[in-house]
Amino acid sequence: MILCDIGNSFFHFYRSGRIWKEPLKRPSIVDISEQILFISVNEKGTEKLKFYRPDAIDLAPFLKLDTLYTGLGVDRVAACMAIEDGVIVDAGSAITVDIMQKGIHLGGFILPGLNAYKDCYASISKALKKDIAPNISLHCLPQSTEEAISYGTIKSVVLTLEDAVKTKNSYFTGGDGKFFSKFFEKSIYDETLVFKGMQKAIEQIR
Amino acid sequence: MILCDIGNSFFHFYRSGRIWKEPLKRPSIVDISEQILFISVNEKGTEKLKFYRPDAIDLAPFLKLDTLYTGLGVDRVAACMAIEDGVIVDAGSAITVDIMQKGIHLGGFILPGLNAYKDCYASISKALKKDIAPNISLHCLPQSTEEAISYGTIKSVVLTLEDAVKTKNSYFTGGDGKFFSKFFEKSIYDETLVFKGMQKAIEQIR
Repeated sequence: MILCDIGNSFFHFYRSGRIWKEPLKRPSIVDISEQILFISVNEKGTEKLKFYRPDAIDLAPFLKLDTLYTGLGVDRVAACMAIEDGVIVDAGSAITVDIMQKGIHLGGFILPGLNAYKDCYASISKALKKDIAPNISLHCLPQSTEEAISYGTIKSVVLTLEDAVKTKNSYFTGGDGKFFSKFFEKSIYDETLVFKGMQKAIEQIR
Repeated sequence: MILCDIGNSFFHFYRSGRIWKEPLKRPSIVDISEQILFISVNEKGTEKLKFYRPDAIDLAPFLKLDTLYTGLGVDRVAACMAIEDGVIVDAGSAITVDIMQKGIHLGGFILPGLNAYKDCYASISKALKKDIAPNISLHCLPQSTEEAISYGTIKSVVLTLEDAVKTKNSYFTGGDGKFFSKFFEKSIYDETLVFKGMQKAIEQIR
């Protein structure tokens, strides 16, 4: 069995404890005869996968989360299903933040992902077309444009995450999850969080 | 005498205490024979103004600020020249934040402007193409995508501004300056801040 989480930028795969990602073109695993179970927040990605593997099963209808939130992305639902209590941060194309308490989803919010911030600054002005420097100090005031946008991006994300986490457990996943988890002492980085939620849904079906 | 601050999105004008802004096409004031003094962070805007008024004078070489920051936008220099002590927030296409202490510029940082955040989310995914709701509560967890991106945007900006301001005086300017100033009890909103710095430079020349 292969699990697939189709995001805005990548196919994310899980198979026998191993995970990997691939760009949104022909996935390498379509030649394998194994059953594919997927979730998707990206219609075009879904079409791509179904084109090569029409037998792939969409797991979305089987994901259940106790929440008042309308329109919660299915990947966020899956990650939340994996956690009983705490803050879940999925830092990919966007940074989604969800709060779980005793198995109930209390709400959540969305920040742009690191790459989106970079493109965002570049779209404002040519002068702001710079890379985000991940090692920027958050304790010294910036003294250049590159430092100024790096500080603005990382400081604003970290402060907002700190405000959400406070004394709660925090769980990080996604491409930049490891990076942001380092700012939180007792955080857990788990790149398989979404797949754990998918597995939980599969167990519930069985 | 007419003062002009050419930004990324608008011409900003100042004349006899009155200010107004115009899109970056033919400015209405070019037919007036009065002297125009300008600063600009936008080359195309400069060309546009100079095309109609080749006699307009660039004030940039006359702006002086004690700083270690390299590449500080000339509009930020002007606003900083108007303030001896405090945090200066110019919330326009970008949100620039600068800290002055005893007439010395200690550094600063840049966040995307409200419109840039909106476009940024939309560029990540169709599902995130929503308006930023300015009245979003920052004390309740969002329960929808629109709330989630509004909260993410405004909360992250406000927390980062709070971290910069702390007990310092804060001065807000720019199109969204009034909006953000409301989050800061003792803040001053002054839409003429950049022009005050320009006037200071003119006095210094005289």
